[in-house]
Amino acid sequence: MENEQIKQILEQIEQGTLSANEAYLKLKVAPFEDLGYAKVDHQRNIRQGAPEVIYGASKTKEQMEGIINSLLSHCTENILITRLSPEAADYLSTHFSLFYDELSKIGIVNRTEHISAAGNIVVATGGTSDIPVAEEAALTAEVLGNHVTRLYDVGVAGLHRLLSNVETLSSANVIIAVAGMEGALASVIGGLTDCPVIAVPTSVGYGASFGGVSALLSMLNSCASGVSVVNIDNGFGAGYLASMINHKIG
Amino acid sequence: MENEQIKQILEQIEQGTLSANEAYLKLKVAPFEDLGYAKVDHQRNIRQGAPEVIYGASKTKEQMEGIINSLLSHCTENILITRLSPEAADYLSTHFSLFYDELSKIGIVNRTEHISAAGNIVVATGGTSDIPVAEEAALTAEVLGNHVTRLYDVGVAGLHRLLSNVETLSSANVIIAVAGMEGALASVIGGLTDCPVIAVPTSVGYGASFGGVSALLSMLNSCASGVSVVNIDNGFGAGYLASMINHKIG
Amino acid sequence: MENEQIKQILEQIEQGTLSANEAYLKLKVAPFEDLGYAKVDHQRNIRQGAPEVIYGASKTKEQMEGIINSLLSHCTENILITRLSPEAADYLSTHFSLFYDELSKIGIVNRTEHISAAGNIVVATGGTSDIPVAEEAALTAEVLGNHVTRLYDVGVAGLHRLLSNVETLSSANVIIAVAGMEGALASVIGGLTDCPVIAVPTSVGYGASFGGVSALLSMLNSCASGVSVVNIDNGFGAGYLASMINHKIG
Amino acid sequence: MENEQIKQILEQIEQGTLSANEAYLKLKVAPFEDLGYAKVDHQRNIRQGAPEVIYGASKTKEQMEGIINSLLSHCTENILITRLSPEAADYLSTHFSLFYDELSKIGIVNRTEHISAAGNIVVATGGTSDIPVAEEAALTAEVLGNHVTRLYDVGVAGLHRLLSNVETLSSANVIIAVAGMEGALASVIGGLTDCPVIAVPTSVGYGASFGGVSALLSMLNSCASGVSVVNIDNGFGAGYLASMINHKIG
Amino acid sequence: MENEQIKQILEQIEQGTLSANEAYLKLKVAPFEDLGYAKVDHQRNIRQGAPEVIYGASKTKEQMEGIINSLLSHCTENILITRLSPEAADYLSTHFSLFYDELSKIGIVNRTEHISAAGNIVVATGGTSDIPVAEEAALTAEVLGNHVTRLYDVGVAGLHRLLSNVETLSSANVIIAVAGMEGALASVIGGLTDCPVIAVPTSVGYGASFGGVSALLSMLNSCASGVSVVNIDNGFGAGYLASMINHKIG
Amino acid sequence: MENEQIKQILEQIEQGTLSANEAYLKLKVAPFEDLGYAKVDHQRNIRQGAPEVIYGASKTKEQMEGIINSLLSHCTENILITRLSPEAADYLSTHFSLFYDELSKIGIVNRTEHISAAGNIVVATGGTSDIPVAEEAALTAEVLGNHVTRLYDVGVAGLHRLLSNVETLSSANVIIAVAGMEGALASVIGGLTDCPVIAVPTSVGYGASFGGVSALLSMLNSCASGVSVVNIDNGFGAGYLASMINHKIG
Amino acid sequence: MENEQIKQILEQIEQGTLSANEAYLKLKVAPFEDLGYAKVDHQRNIRQGAPEVIYGASKTKEQMEGIINSLLSHCTENILITRLSPEAADYLSTHFSLFYDELSKIGIVNRTEHISAAGNIVVATGGTSDIPVAEEAALTAEVLGNHVTRLYDVGVAGLHRLLSNVETLSSANVIIAVAGMEGALASVIGGLTDCPVIAVPTSVGYGASFGGVSALLSMLNSCASGVSVVNIDNGFGAGYLASMINHKIG
Amino acid sequence: MENEQIKQILEQIEQGTLSANEAYLKLKVAPFEDLGYAKVDHQRNIRQGAPEVIYGASKTKEQMEGIINSLLSHCTENILITRLSPEAADYLSTHFSLFYDELSKIGIVNRTEHISAAGNIVVATGGTSDIPVAEEAALTAEVLGNHVTRLYDVGVAGLHRLLSNVETLSSANVIIAVAGMEGALASVIGGLTDCPVIAVPTSVGYGASFGGVSALLSMLNSCASGVSVVNIDNGFGAGYLASMINHKIG
Repeated sequence: MENEQIKQILEQIEQGTLSANEAYLKLKVAPFEDLGYAKVDHQRNIRQGAPEVIYGASKTKEQMEGIINSLLSHCTENILITRLSPEAADYLSTHFSLFYDELSKIGIVNRTEHISAAGNIVVATGGTSDIPVAEEAALTAEVLGNHVTRLYDVGVAGLHRLLSNVETLSSANVIIAVAGMEGALASVIGGLTDCPVIAVPTSVGYGASFGGVSALLSMLNSCASGVSVVNIDNGFGAGYLASMINHKIG
Repeated sequence: MENEQIKQILEQIEQGTLSANEAYLKLKVAPFEDLGYAKVDHQRNIRQGAPEVIYGASKTKEQMEGIINSLLSHCTENILITRLSPEAADYLSTHFSLFYDELSKIGIVNRTEHISAAGNIVVATGGTSDIPVAEEAALTAEVLGNHVTRLYDVGVAGLHRLLSNVETLSSANVIIAVAGMEGALASVIGGLTDCPVIAVPTSVGYGASFGGVSALLSMLNSCASGVSVVNIDNGFGAGYLASMINHKIG
Repeated sequence: MENEQIKQILEQIEQGTLSANEAYLKLKVAPFEDLGYAKVDHQRNIRQGAPEVIYGASKTKEQMEGIINSLLSHCTENILITRLSPEAADYLSTHFSLFYDELSKIGIVNRTEHISAAGNIVVATGGTSDIPVAEEAALTAEVLGNHVTRLYDVGVAGLHRLLSNVETLSSANVIIAVAGMEGALASVIGGLTDCPVIAVPTSVGYGASFGGVSALLSMLNSCASGVSVVNIDNGFGAGYLASMINHKIG
Repeated sequence: MENEQIKQILEQIEQGTLSANEAYLKLKVAPFEDLGYAKVDHQRNIRQGAPEVIYGASKTKEQMEGIINSLLSHCTENILITRLSPEAADYLSTHFSLFYDELSKIGIVNRTEHISAAGNIVVATGGTSDIPVAEEAALTAEVLGNHVTRLYDVGVAGLHRLLSNVETLSSANVIIAVAGMEGALASVIGGLTDCPVIAVPTSVGYGASFGGVSALLSMLNSCASGVSVVNIDNGFGAGYLASMINHKIG
Repeated sequence: MENEQIKQILEQIEQGTLSANEAYLKLKVAPFEDLGYAKVDHQRNIRQGAPEVIYGASKTKEQMEGIINSLLSHCTENILITRLSPEAADYLSTHFSLFYDELSKIGIVNRTEHISAAGNIVVATGGTSDIPVAEEAALTAEVLGNHVTRLYDVGVAGLHRLLSNVETLSSANVIIAVAGMEGALASVIGGLTDCPVIAVPTSVGYGASFGGVSALLSMLNSCASGVSVVNIDNGFGAGYLASMINHKIG
Repeated sequence: MENEQIKQILEQIEQGTLSANEAYLKLKVAPFEDLGYAKVDHQRNIRQGAPEVIYGASKTKEQMEGIINSLLSHCTENILITRLSPEAADYLSTHFSLFYDELSKIGIVNRTEHISAAGNIVVATGGTSDIPVAEEAALTAEVLGNHVTRLYDVGVAGLHRLLSNVETLSSANVIIAVAGMEGALASVIGGLTDCPVIAVPTSVGYGASFGGVSALLSMLNSCASGVSVVNIDNGFGAGYLASMINHKIG
Repeated sequence: MENEQIKQILEQIEQGTLSANEAYLKLKVAPFEDLGYAKVDHQRNIRQGAPEVIYGASKTKEQMEGIINSLLSHCTENILITRLSPEAADYLSTHFSLFYDELSKIGIVNRTEHISAAGNIVVATGGTSDIPVAEEAALTAEVLGNHVTRLYDVGVAGLHRLLSNVETLSSANVIIAVAGMEGALASVIGGLTDCPVIAVPTSVGYGASFGGVSALLSMLNSCASGVSVVNIDNGFGAGYLASMINHKIG
Repeated sequence: MENEQIKQILEQIEQGTLSANEAYLKLKVAPFEDLGYAKVDHQRNIRQGAPEVIYGASKTKEQMEGIINSLLSHCTENILITRLSPEAADYLSTHFSLFYDELSKIGIVNRTEHISAAGNIVVATGGTSDIPVAEEAALTAEVLGNHVTRLYDVGVAGLHRLLSNVETLSSANVIIAVAGMEGALASVIGGLTDCPVIAVPTSVGYGASFGGVSALLSMLNSCASGVSVVNIDNGFGAGYLASMINHKIG
């Protein structure tokens, strides 16, 4: 609760328009709905101009249904669900108008297209295998109102594929670099551009890639400035942060 | 080299104002000075409006002197040196006008103050011990033309210290959250605000902090959206990225 | 065997009411039943006022049946089985009166409700996904005679959900904080209260959560005093320890 | 700030004995003193009946002096400083009445002895080398008003040394088990007693002890119930938690 | 694009046989085909005299079909697919003439035999279980035009099996040493010969082999000179590099 | 080949009873049969008085059949196969007289009982879940001609179960201590006896047991003398080594 | 205390030659001397025919002096101190007759030579750098009454150095294989001989040797039977175990 | 010993020109000199046309002196010592004609320049800080008779520095890529050229570079073909292998 709101409530008591007890209740009213298994945060929707997001990986389909119903009372469009299994998507699509992308496991209830930020977000991948994570980032950024350009399979082992697209990179307000294996893409892009680069290591690879650890470490050690990193396979986090920066720029 | 420049060069040949050989040399001219032990990048200074930065940790003082001299031919102010040992600082201060902060090991040649971005960057730390890394971030952001607010020792174990400063957090365009040990500061700040949070894990702690790994993992796993992470103790990287975003916002 | 018992046996020999050989056998009699594949500890039941507990994860259903039968000769109620698969639960329920909770994989033979400690144990989780581990803790504490309050989905990324429940936290003799991902819940709760906090890292998460290691390290590095940690996903251990402390308090 | 206090303040406005502005300031007053490099928490002293604790490892001696002076305005006895270097101890002892134990690196300003909890805390170690960590725990518990029994060098490789002291173990309200290397002490003690065991892994050992990781993992995997773990070498944390439990028991 | 090609283009403009615009397009023409999900590199085929290689592990069978069709427009023989699942192989074999080896998961479209390098490559394994990785290396080297000698199950625990084959080892231009578990094979072979040894750790083993990490570390620490290492299970990489060296030798 | 054999061959040439060429062939004759995918070591059988052992984990059933047939030409009894899957056991039992123990995955072709060493080997486990690994050790030791005593579920959390069996421990020439979780069993047994203890960590456990790493590290750090360690779950290796020592003792 | 002793004590009470109280005290008398900081185990000396051993790494020189004085009351020769610093050795040599080997950091109070086991222990190293650890093993075995043969610098990269010494290996009852880096020595020796091989990984190496972890993993994964492993750099443990086995053999 | 040599010896016996005993001795004669602490391999010098190499890191200066003297009896030039401390270099330079490079810690006794291979080896580094490791590689390759081109500070964050030197890369028979931090240099060079690339990770960096592990993993996961890896900081190994390949090419 903001200080301004607190001040108003206190002034209302002073003016006699609010009793101490009523004020107490107001100050205590939680801006979330308690479903027992989840405390759904309605205030966040309003505050951040973004739809509430449901992390679907370890929730039952009934829990998700309950949360969506709670959200729909405050926010009628573009409810995002990440890591949604095809089975749960089947279930939810019988109850809601659901867009579902099987590759990225993204579901969107009552999807509508809208662009609320002027700039462009570029999502680049090292290889074809990184596309599912990249799509999680791209679809997240799109649902949050951004224009997204996809630049896939431009890994550093064939550098001319990336160099041929320098103009695309230059057009971006923010770049999301998605790569597994040695994860060098973020450093090379970071060196070619001067906009923030959000690096997303992926679990693509085998052996000493250790489920994305190798790419993660590469990206954390990037010698290019302007690069920061999110969790392995966290396309959603990258898309959300890119949108946040893109909207700040305006 | 940008496509526009390539096009211009090609048109000059077509117009006969440039020979093929001259054009070839122009296309090949490297925008850096080669000192043998270092290839100093002058273009980057100009392109990014930021002083070249010298990573001082494993360079001899003579190498640094040479690089500074090379840089001074293109850029006369605010040359930043990170991880500068007191001994090397002594040496350089006899050759240059050097500002040196022993806590953060930051050196700045020909330091001048200037503010080139409107917004505010907040640098917060979990504890007193995180201040050296925080100062590396803050001084970097300041030398790059940003206004910086410091908010130190607001770790989550005494939450009221942070909650009393929510207004300061709200004033920021970007927040840098610096914390060691369990690194929870980034998540809590991320949940309280809706601006980008750059998390800097520090090597502060002992035992199972593993030189910052514990804080690094916490920050990568942050359940708050809008948080990204740089390398352990990488105050410079956080300050640089924060400045980049702050300047983009305008 | 306690020193008092040894002394009694020795005095009986001295008094001639027990022969040396009989005494030797008594001293040797193991307070457990040897089933070959398991040595069932009956004394522990009596000594600790707690039902024997069966770790079901890697036992065959026949082994569990044998152990339960052995236990039932000394203890007729509330035999707890953890990590009980649905298949084994089906089998056991045909032989015993079995309560089974599929979420937490807890089984209880001859369950009866009883409260033997005055205080309250609060079980809090960071998210919905942590509930199975939390329920393992809660059901364990309940079967051991404690009153338990559940406080689920109060993770630090939405701090007001936790702050709205400070009164619940203050009511506890012991708090069990269950969280995956960055595991910051334990530190924040530890800072808000002055009762023992038992932190349970969960394997909830992906990528750099490394199956719970990230949360485990966070909790071990907690800068809040009064926090100690049990193994990843070890809801049972936390519930047992919380009960032990709660009963000590009386 | 507690709800009761909030209610009182609100009622005072209703009754006209407090203006809205005064109330606002009261609600905003931070219960800490801001030294810039540290925010000293005075409320915690009062609330928890325990002296404020200073983690000395990475603070300058001048910072510690400032914090102690701030604390002395609210609390005149038994200010605890952990990980205090001999050099800093020398400096502080010229300004304050300082007790200093070089083995455990514990410093106590204006030390006074007092016993505020009835029960007994036993601190046991596996070997002689674990004593510094054990003393950090023991001195912490003593300064917090507990009676402490030391039981050193009772590691499991010579089990009779531990078995000869079962009576001492049985006398405890809480046991702190301090061990490096294989860390088996906590499990064995946990199996012999039915009180909470706080396990402290130490960095004693070499090779595959990995600075305490081996002992830490052993303790986390303890098959004895009632065992929880704190960070490697965290004698202070164990002593603090043991005191908290011991005082709850009364 | 090579410097000679650039020079030629520039000279053609100078001579008036090429307009600036046409030159620009030529300089921009990417030597790859963009399929959206993949940027297929045709130049690499030509430049390196080797068939393009498709990493099949995380591509859909339709993606692979598209890439093969793209490749067939420039290169009609010996298109290599690694980590090809039997299911995908079934699908591809209905569209192309596909050789498929189920053990090594190697597929080859339009396979033809040819020897383009004079020397011999020896592929040795520590055990029978390492053969799938060894066959990936051997088939790769063969499709690239090399003569390959297989020497399987010659691990160091039965040294006479290796010593009986010293003559075979001596015949090699390059040796590929494939081993899991303790990975000592590479060191022993490195000590017996004076040709380059490419060590391939395999994920064969259990427990502390950690999926090949043990063998990987052994090989990286080889005290024999002339040994270098590729990723765990990377038979393809070893076969490719061996072929590169073998062809250089001539 | 032994020096004595070499000397004899050389003397036979000197005496004219052997030509140089024949001698060369004899010196080159490999004491193994080469099946292509395996080099079967017949000499080892003879030299070590032990049946050849087949590691079944990553061999096809046909490969195993081939190796058994090769072995049967030199050794007609007690051919041991470890990590034999039930499916492969089914296949092999149609071709050979196969004993198969599903728990330990041990198969024995033409099993016969025989005792060739006087002493006793004790196999102890911490819990019921460790029995499969323990049986691999026990059956291996038995097939190699040893008398084995099993002592299962005597973990350190219920120490009286182990202390009641000190006489059994004292009877052993060698003890195999099999334990997962915290692996403290080896240290405690090592402290109670003065015979060699072979410690076998098992992958039993969850969370921070990390598939047996916790037990492995505990055992490597054992503060009891006389303890050495084999790989995680390596019951075979422990049984083989125990037999070797037991036979040496005579 | 042994069962026979317990029986005797019980019979003495039955016969009236011992009172119950006296018996209780006898049963309680600890076979160790309690120095406060150490509980010195005199019984172990007697039981195992071996001198008590002092781990010197983290004891003060005064503590060691106290323990030696305690030991000298029961055992007048060959008191072994491992990891003894030169400084502490200087101090102790002014109080006792001390043999000190600076390379292995072994100290022996009142050293006398004696051979109490018939067989031979071979200590082999991979390189010159492993000699300090090897000497710790060799001197330990010698002080325990064994004949030791040293075979240094026979690493697998120059296999003929090892093969030239097969006869020496064959002469051993037990072999201690000491190696850092890739640690392959243990496997190769294990394959060449049929006696127990105790593998000692050393911290010799750099980079990916990770302080001995690489060698440790190699040795744990040895494909040769009869190999077991002790902690990194644990020469003492290997020498003690080798002596134990050598004495058992007789 | 080669088979041809064995055959010759056998024929000499057959021809009566060699007795069996003499033959036995010849077959047993070790091609190394045994100094006790080292077994110096003279055959390797001759066989490989390369000077013997001494790893100086953990040898005493007297041991090195002894080994050099032993080597000088067979090889009078270019004896290479790696990781030679300045102190040991001082000592050795009083006994031998020693070239010493303090940066790379390389020492060479009786250095003479010679070129024995036609091709060129390029040594590239990511930054200035990688030069010591690069010089170890370059000096090793030079002393082994190769022409070496140095290309320092061409890391991927400023890609134009590398692209300006593509011609130099194209001139190489072998490239050694030396880089710390994210280690992306090897992949980018591997993609730009078609000659073998030997990747050397360096321990340059801080935080999550983990002493070179990050660069090591990057290089192992390189998506460019033709890249293999040596140990962290192992400039010598890379230089030696590069020379081996360069000489094979001729």
